[in-house]
Amino acid sequence: MLMTEVIRRKRDGERLGDAEIREVIREYAAGRVPDYQMAALLMAVFLRGLDEGELTAWASAMLHSGEVVDLSGLPGPKVDKHSTGGVGDKVSVPLAPLVAACGVRVPMISGRGLGHTGGTLDKLESIPGFRTDLSVERFVAGVREVGACLIGQTETLVPADRKMYALRDVTATVDSIPLIAASIMSKKLAEGVSGLVLDVKVGSGAFMKTMEDARTLARTLVGIGRGNGVRTVAVLTDMSEPLGWAVGNALEIEESVEVLRGEGPPDTSALVRVLGGTLLWIGGVVRDVGEGETRIEDAVRSGAGLETFRRMVAFQGGDPRVADDPGRLPRARGRKEVVAGRDGFVTAIECEQVGLAGVLLGAGRRTKEDRIDPAVGFRVHAKVGQRVTRGDPLVTIHCNDDAALPQVEAMLARAWTIGDDPVTRGPLILGREPD
Amino acid sequence: MLMTEVIRRKRDGERLGDAEIREVIREYAAGRVPDYQMAALLMAVFLRGLDEGELTAWASAMLHSGEVVDLSGLPGPKVDKHSTGGVGDKVSVPLAPLVAACGVRVPMISGRGLGHTGGTLDKLESIPGFRTDLSVERFVAGVREVGACLIGQTETLVPADRKMYALRDVTATVDSIPLIAASIMSKKLAEGVSGLVLDVKVGSGAFMKTMEDARTLARTLVGIGRGNGVRTVAVLTDMSEPLGWAVGNALEIEESVEVLRGEGPPDTSALVRVLGGTLLWIGGVVRDVGEGETRIEDAVRSGAGLETFRRMVAFQGGDPRVADDPGRLPRARGRKEVVAGRDGFVTAIECEQVGLAGVLLGAGRRTKEDRIDPAVGFRVHAKVGQRVTRGDPLVTIHCNDDAALPQVEAMLARAWTIGDDPVTRGPLILGREPD
Repeated sequence: MLMTEVIRRKRDGERLGDAEIREVIREYAAGRVPDYQMAALLMAVFLRGLDEGELTAWASAMLHSGEVVDLSGLPGPKVDKHSTGGVGDKVSVPLAPLVAACGVRVPMISGRGLGHTGGTLDKLESIPGFRTDLSVERFVAGVREVGACLIGQTETLVPADRKMYALRDVTATVDSIPLIAASIMSKKLAEGVSGLVLDVKVGSGAFMKTMEDARTLARTLVGIGRGNGVRTVAVLTDMSEPLGWAVGNALEIEESVEVLRGEGPPDTSALVRVLGGTLLWIGGVVRDVGEGETRIEDAVRSGAGLETFRRMVAFQGGDPRVADDPGRLPRARGRKEVVAGRDGFVTAIECEQVGLAGVLLGAGRRTKEDRIDPAVGFRVHAKVGQRVTRGDPLVTIHCNDDAALPQVEAMLARAWTIGDDPVTRGPLILGREPD
Repeated sequence: MLMTEVIRRKRDGERLGDAEIREVIREYAAGRVPDYQMAALLMAVFLRGLDEGELTAWASAMLHSGEVVDLSGLPGPKVDKHSTGGVGDKVSVPLAPLVAACGVRVPMISGRGLGHTGGTLDKLESIPGFRTDLSVERFVAGVREVGACLIGQTETLVPADRKMYALRDVTATVDSIPLIAASIMSKKLAEGVSGLVLDVKVGSGAFMKTMEDARTLARTLVGIGRGNGVRTVAVLTDMSEPLGWAVGNALEIEESVEVLRGEGPPDTSALVRVLGGTLLWIGGVVRDVGEGETRIEDAVRSGAGLETFRRMVAFQGGDPRVADDPGRLPRARGRKEVVAGRDGFVTAIECEQVGLAGVLLGAGRRTKEDRIDPAVGFRVHAKVGQRVTRGDPLVTIHCNDDAALPQVEAMLARAWTIGDDPVTRGPLILGREPD
């Protein structure tokens, strides 16, 4: 392989061959293709794209740059869900134990929050003692014994993605749909799952702001999954306001427990039900998504989901009593309400601004090196469509750091738009891929 | 400046500001922008382009990455000619002394041959003793005392171009018109000239194969020159067959002397006259190009050009007697004729193939590290349009290395097309920019 020739061909809009892509990724991961050549190739990919066949090979090559989790010793289907990221998106936390309680194993490798979106690992780590840095062996044991286990990326899984992501970050090649899709899918495929549900978020709080972009990403993700022999579907869901009531790590664990108890906010509960139903269908244990949703509802009602959550937390070193006593989660010292400045209806919430206010407060990270405060965050009272009277609380800030508070308050006050006319909130589920 | 933001903006087709471009080039030259970021930016520039204003700033920033020759102490106009490269293009060698003999100084910084095209430095160095590695001080002294001096790039001139060219070479970003133009112009502007004539070659032996590409390059080069305050014009000239009779370093010096004596081949002599006339016009010593051409003819007839050539050779350490006795130039040991296989008319010569055959023979370089043999090359007998009879010599190979000979012969035999019908050679001068 002549790397300059590979770059030239992609630069000129030509198709790369599977063997060629495998060699490029392997040699890059091994340090034999220098960063400057990969940077030129990534920019050419950014501007010229990769077709479905190229992407399947690209993701597969990334995946095989490291260890792949071997779940072949565990009987039955193994499925996972991945979200493209949003504000208040704690779905994975109640979802994994609920699906496991319905007899489908969930080996989930998650990420941390970056920018305005949160990360499942950060949320789980707000549970006292909870560890997300298990070895692959312990992870497989968790999936076997509990049915669900949630860990972070390990050094041995998909090393090419870690290296490539760091390079993309400094060469303005992050927000490319093919490269995002290959990065997501290589990590998900490395879990050794047989089915995958992708929650592609759309709206002001998502990376994809338009349905068109979200649809393209969904199609691309599904194509890569299927090209690599994994049953994959995508659900496009609304992220034009924070999901549920809680934004912030411990607060979102508390809401997750509420969902597991059947006491969660309508949108979070509905999304858990739909995605859970889809996972059970993808796992092949129900005939359709509707039947899957009913099974998820049953697992909430019976308490089986909550019990699996307790066992998962215990297996991963955490205090399972948080499932019964949210007071065991870290709590922020201060509370501050942001109130409605006028009478009217909440017509919109600038969701990304809410996420960024959370980062400022310490609930998220600006850079990978930032430390987060698990206790801080927001509790949203007035969602889109809600009628409010001047002085009604819109959102309560849970804070420890008073210095950032005035700016956080101002950001939140600006994030809510209150109008005269009633509005109806749009649907939560915007589409599926394939339709 | 945030480099990722600069890359992103160019990636998205936005315009970069002058100050931004200056900072990028300066920081890159200083090693503070890493190669991988520059590689991503170069690919974005390759695919998105640079407009005339951006290019003017880019070339100016490259130029100011190092020393600029200061010719302000020398009275009168200072002009230069640059050719985009061809086969048998020895024009600079007779042109510089002829223009200097007409009272316009020529400070010329030239390049070496690479790929199928030759380089002026290699040609001059075939003169025993001739040095092209003069210091900038000696160079200025040569321009002052002789009126013309021809040297190579120094370490101190345009270091950003050297570094960037090496990176472009390994990242498939070489053949971009804006980047080629910025590279050429930064080096030419560093000479400190007030006027510049660009000989943009078009045809099978040139980098630009079509009039459209050549016209774009010409326009781009002229835009950068004018944007940087230098009187610049481009002449588009034919390179669909080798220029003149000689291809190869010492052989081309011999032909240069023939031109200076008024005994050169019609095409080389005509091109020297036209470019010389244009340089005198750009230098402001004649009213129009036609008057300039007459002055060049006079300098040939009077022997003033040949005398300036002798002085230039002597100043640069070479043996000036080559101007009177070509036997003092290196001569190859062997001769081999390639003859016409049939009766007819030469309808085309695959000019790039002739150049590549020259490289194979040792007259040029495949890589920068290759050593060349100054003596070897070709003497062309049958040019396009010429009637030949089976067995007539088309070209004589001057060779030292017998091993490459069969392949060189075969390449040359294939390069000549002989047809039944007479053809007329197209014009040598194909256009001017601005028109």
